[in-house]
Amino acid sequence: MKKLNIGLFGFGVVGEGIYQVLSEKSQLQTHIKKIVIKDPEKKRNAPAELFSIDPNEILNDETIDVVVELIDDADAAFEIVKTALNKGKSVVSANKKMIAENHLELIELQRKNKVSFLYEAAVCGSIPILRNLEEYYNNDLLNYVNGIVNGSTNYILTKMRSENQSYENALKAAQENGFAERNPTLDVEGVDAVNKLSIIILHAFGRLISPDDILKKGITALKNEDFKYAAEKGLIIKLIAGCAVDKSENITPIVVPTFIEKSKTLGLVNNEYNGVLIGSDLADEQFLYGKGAGRYPTSSAVLSDISALRYNYKYELRKGIKNGFHGEYFAEKKFYVGFKPGLDLDKSTFQNIEESYQSKDYEYVTGTISLNELKNSGWLENPEISVISF
Amino acid sequence: MKKLNIGLFGFGVVGEGIYQVLSEKSQLQTHIKKIVIKDPEKKRNAPAELFSIDPNEILNDETIDVVVELIDDADAAFEIVKTALNKGKSVVSANKKMIAENHLELIELQRKNKVSFLYEAAVCGSIPILRNLEEYYNNDLLNYVNGIVNGSTNYILTKMRSENQSYENALKAAQENGFAERNPTLDVEGVDAVNKLSIIILHAFGRLISPDDILKKGITALKNEDFKYAAEKGLIIKLIAGCAVDKSENITPIVVPTFIEKSKTLGLVNNEYNGVLIGSDLADEQFLYGKGAGRYPTSSAVLSDISALRYNYKYELRKGIKNGFHGEYFAEKKFYVGFKPGLDLDKSTFQNIEESYQSKDYEYVTGTISLNELKNSGWLENPEISVISF
Repeated sequence: MKKLNIGLFGFGVVGEGIYQVLSEKSQLQTHIKKIVIKDPEKKRNAPAELFSIDPNEILNDETIDVVVELIDDADAAFEIVKTALNKGKSVVSANKKMIAENHLELIELQRKNKVSFLYEAAVCGSIPILRNLEEYYNNDLLNYVNGIVNGSTNYILTKMRSENQSYENALKAAQENGFAERNPTLDVEGVDAVNKLSIIILHAFGRLISPDDILKKGITALKNEDFKYAAEKGLIIKLIAGCAVDKSENITPIVVPTFIEKSKTLGLVNNEYNGVLIGSDLADEQFLYGKGAGRYPTSSAVLSDISALRYNYKYELRKGIKNGFHGEYFAEKKFYVGFKPGLDLDKSTFQNIEESYQSKDYEYVTGTISLNELKNSGWLENPEISVISF
Repeated sequence: MKKLNIGLFGFGVVGEGIYQVLSEKSQLQTHIKKIVIKDPEKKRNAPAELFSIDPNEILNDETIDVVVELIDDADAAFEIVKTALNKGKSVVSANKKMIAENHLELIELQRKNKVSFLYEAAVCGSIPILRNLEEYYNNDLLNYVNGIVNGSTNYILTKMRSENQSYENALKAAQENGFAERNPTLDVEGVDAVNKLSIIILHAFGRLISPDDILKKGITALKNEDFKYAAEKGLIIKLIAGCAVDKSENITPIVVPTFIEKSKTLGLVNNEYNGVLIGSDLADEQFLYGKGAGRYPTSSAVLSDISALRYNYKYELRKGIKNGFHGEYFAEKKFYVGFKPGLDLDKSTFQNIEESYQSKDYEYVTGTISLNELKNSGWLENPEISVISF
């Protein structure tokens, strides 16, 4: 097993946690040689001589073979990771935005430089979803991946349902418990889930898709009336990130609030937990479950990746890298669309209407919509309109 | 990707299912060349020229590179697998008894002959537990594996609790639904779970342990009163196979009915489902969940193994193979021990007693017992005595 010399970028809660574990567990045979930070004045729980504000102290150090990148700024992270890979260092990162936006280039750099670039921590915290998609579902017969991949929104939705809290209070509780950022936009608008889904889609189906081409609706448009509708039907609302592939190899990548039955597997996933269902012709339906948000799950996934580098593990992407999306969606789904009266909703967007409800306070329509029509409707971006999939 | 020529032993429900899938999915590039069966008279859903009753038609055919072994008889299976490995063929098997009893020899044969021997289907049906233990938890910091690994007993226990059925009726329902064998002894006495646990322990901890050294209590001694006790305390009873490793590398392998809280993760595993919790210093607690009993899960796991052979996957057992057990258990646990009055139970087996209950119909004692004492007590083998772990 290889002994690793590590250069660490970032010393926030995750970085510090990793430093502590690696210092204590000598059997891992890893050694943090240098830690690059932005603010040299801040007090740190590690020897002062470890720290530097100069990235080159890591990037130009030939004895450092692994870079662990844990900084917030996606653009700066990309520069660091690119340089590290080009200098023949393996890289572990948890930066889903940076990866989703530069996936192909990063994979090509990894291949060209014959190093490893691992990022299990970027998707579903401590759940080994990428490793499983790489190793176990490496066949042509994967049908779908459906998951609750964002712990913050799942925590908020759970509190809203089980404790009847308002969105605002549930968000506050999530922030107080460390499950949501102070600026929660990326989470609650579904951006984070979209980034994760685009990473999953490459490992699951060998399809490269830009986050911009994934249909997206967050949880901020949901109204009390929508939860009431769900409760009446014995359903719960979860933010599900999903992608199915049909027999003609068309994919339907979408992040959208979704009604599910409480007793269904994804209904078991509550609070800050994540869970992913993997459906395959060969392997039946599989379910992976674990903590998705918070300090510890991210640290643990990063540590697992570091551990895997000791035996030169790398993502092989055996399913290839095909262009994932050609500008059109070839599926239709049943949706619920809710809104306040007075909003002039173009109901011809529905292929067929199943239910239609009006009162002086609220209206909703349920029925089938093609995903192309849904995209063109503008409803996904409209904060006044709830769109919930069945 | 390699094209595979397969020789199949056994054409029961799993064998036939695999034949069908491989015939339909040409993209898998696998081809079943010969199927060896016992009874040449039986009608089969495949061309007659595929069948033979002579094992050598597969074993001596140099163009066959993969043997898929799906027969019931563990001894005959062992001979087939040994010969196949020695002839340089890779092998996929679902025969947990055969593997648990001959694990070391089989692994040595695999290494010596530089072939693959895969058996994901032998443990927890379609859940990729071995693959995960091999690939993701390949570090020195795994603390425990706790699982519901037998679908038949989990189905029976679920029915007994949720529908208040008697053991006999629940067993009958399990048999009618294909989740229990006509002769259910191996399942209900915990033998099947023990075999699976011994396989898990090697992949999880790199420790070789004979099934005979795993403490074992099945579900047949459980009485109504035990379920009543559980209900009163808000607990449910599950047959849990578990192994923890302590800081001195002592392991505590045990299969025993266990009280758990309904809301705990393993409490979510009902009916024929299996679920495994993996605890590690690095990777937080992970949970893998899927179908454990029945035709389809076994077939799907076998097919996944076949698929993995296309890229030469093999178990590396990077944690090594150490002798797992030195005749003593170094742990103690809290147990509930229930029995009918009149049975002269030696209570000095308990290190300390927490509760003690007597009525004219039933008695129970709860308290801490060292696993060594438990083994020596004879209670595990006594069908009159319920032993349930907390």
